[in-house]
Amino acid sequence: MASERAVIAGLRRLFPAPRGVEVPIGDDAAVVRNPAARSVLCCDPVVEGVHFASDAPPALVGRKAVNRNLSDLAAMGARPDWLLVSLVLPRGYAAARRRALLRGIRDAARAGGAAVVGGDLATSPGPLVVTVTAIGHPVGRVLRRDGARPGDRLHLSGPIGGAGLGHHLRFLPELAVGAWLARQRPVRAAIDVSDGLLLDLRTLLDASGCPGAELDAEALPLRRAALRRGGGDRDRALRRALAEGEDHVLLFAARAALPAGGPLPRAARRPIGRVSARPGLFLVHADGRRQRLRAEGYQHVL
Amino acid sequence: MASERAVIAGLRRLFPAPRGVEVPIGDDAAVVRNPAARSVLCCDPVVEGVHFASDAPPALVGRKAVNRNLSDLAAMGARPDWLLVSLVLPRGYAAARRRALLRGIRDAARAGGAAVVGGDLATSPGPLVVTVTAIGHPVGRVLRRDGARPGDRLHLSGPIGGAGLGHHLRFLPELAVGAWLARQRPVRAAIDVSDGLLLDLRTLLDASGCPGAELDAEALPLRRAALRRGGGDRDRALRRALAEGEDHVLLFAARAALPAGGPLPRAARRPIGRVSARPGLFLVHADGRRQRLRAEGYQHVL
Repeated sequence: MASERAVIAGLRRLFPAPRGVEVPIGDDAAVVRNPAARSVLCCDPVVEGVHFASDAPPALVGRKAVNRNLSDLAAMGARPDWLLVSLVLPRGYAAARRRALLRGIRDAARAGGAAVVGGDLATSPGPLVVTVTAIGHPVGRVLRRDGARPGDRLHLSGPIGGAGLGHHLRFLPELAVGAWLARQRPVRAAIDVSDGLLLDLRTLLDASGCPGAELDAEALPLRRAALRRGGGDRDRALRRALAEGEDHVLLFAARAALPAGGPLPRAARRPIGRVSARPGLFLVHADGRRQRLRAEGYQHVL
Repeated sequence: MASERAVIAGLRRLFPAPRGVEVPIGDDAAVVRNPAARSVLCCDPVVEGVHFASDAPPALVGRKAVNRNLSDLAAMGARPDWLLVSLVLPRGYAAARRRALLRGIRDAARAGGAAVVGGDLATSPGPLVVTVTAIGHPVGRVLRRDGARPGDRLHLSGPIGGAGLGHHLRFLPELAVGAWLARQRPVRAAIDVSDGLLLDLRTLLDASGCPGAELDAEALPLRRAALRRGGGDRDRALRRALAEGEDHVLLFAARAALPAGGPLPRAARRPIGRVSARPGLFLVHADGRRQRLRAEGYQHVL
């Protein structure tokens, strides 16, 4: 057993303060210099038994807790600067697991170009809860959800489906893609795909005041794990992937073809569909068949 | 039951965006204009069964979750600007309780001059966890913990003790006092009293590289509830209050008398003790008796 203050002393060693941090971990609050005139802010928890299984490796839990937030910043076209981490540890949580969790947090922060500058530790009888707050700055325009218009091409920055098979712990936030998109004139709106493509698409359409969209069944990129799980039946795998969530790729709308160059994978230059003036979501197959889709996905029922 | 998105639509009505918010609640992240070149950041959770009892009124739980963080900003001499709120609700948590919790959050934010601009909602089997992140800016110097020196006078901005009898849910953060202290030249260090005066004093001394302090038993201010609970035995009540915590008053060190004026209560102008060059914490009684004290208080054992 270690006292809270011994742990905090350890945190100061684990999370050394980079340039721009005036008051680091260990005071009532951190003081940082703002790299820009505007800040981009988000805060998401991950909860044991909800966002990860009890036997998930703690380092991957820490990584996910950070990357969920970095993915949100990526979808705004922002770069992360500072992270705050609140840990609510189940009583008796082993010190080795706590250290692995913290290393996972640190490594994901570093990989994203961010630094942990503060937070808090508590214990509880309940499940492990890791809440990360990410503070960043826009690098170009801000990519909102509400700029899409009928006729816009829809794109995905990467494949979807089967996130539950491991991807949900290991995904990397699309920071470089988000920052690039924020500088491309044709791009009008973007969203992080976390609740499932259909639900997040519906959110983007609603925010933009657009009634519907058509998705091109052939063009929708599937993760290999999703295809394998479907026994190679692409249609079935696709239907499932559309409502699954935790893909953490970017869904974006562009009014014209994307400029060449940049970090966007080749496959992502092919539109996956279009925003339409017709109400509803439709899946259009290669043979011309049009299937109406319900905007299903992951929602916490409250 | 309400869907997550219905709840989020409700949040946008409950937390209207003030000036300075470019992208409000409802996108992947919030975008705000920074009111200053530096930001002050903190993040603390409150957990059911740890920081509040299950039968605590939800509005007061929300209030505490906000004010714990505002108290940390106050201790830095900062004013709050933006809050992010992460709610992990036990499954089946009643909608009326959720609304009361959110109103408590909103009212405490307003009272502190801050606005809720984002966050997240999740459900879990576990206890209620409310994690608030506060982002503010310094109004004068930054009040660190590490500036105290032997000979400095120690002050408390208000009385201590008996926080568990109700004060821990109802305290108000000392924002005006913190902002005033940050502008007073004699003030060298400050800390929020959350873990108990002795433990937080020890933290301030350690950060400042000072070996000890003497406390004046007569000058230490006690909350009336703490005195009443002690049956009027001031000595006993005082000993207990010194290690109790959740007082959320400011402990600060000053190298000279404080200037007149400002929001500091009259009683807080009288020093409660002195930083000393002699190791250890001592309680000095009116009759000259010196009692050695252990730096006890509230620590999460990890």
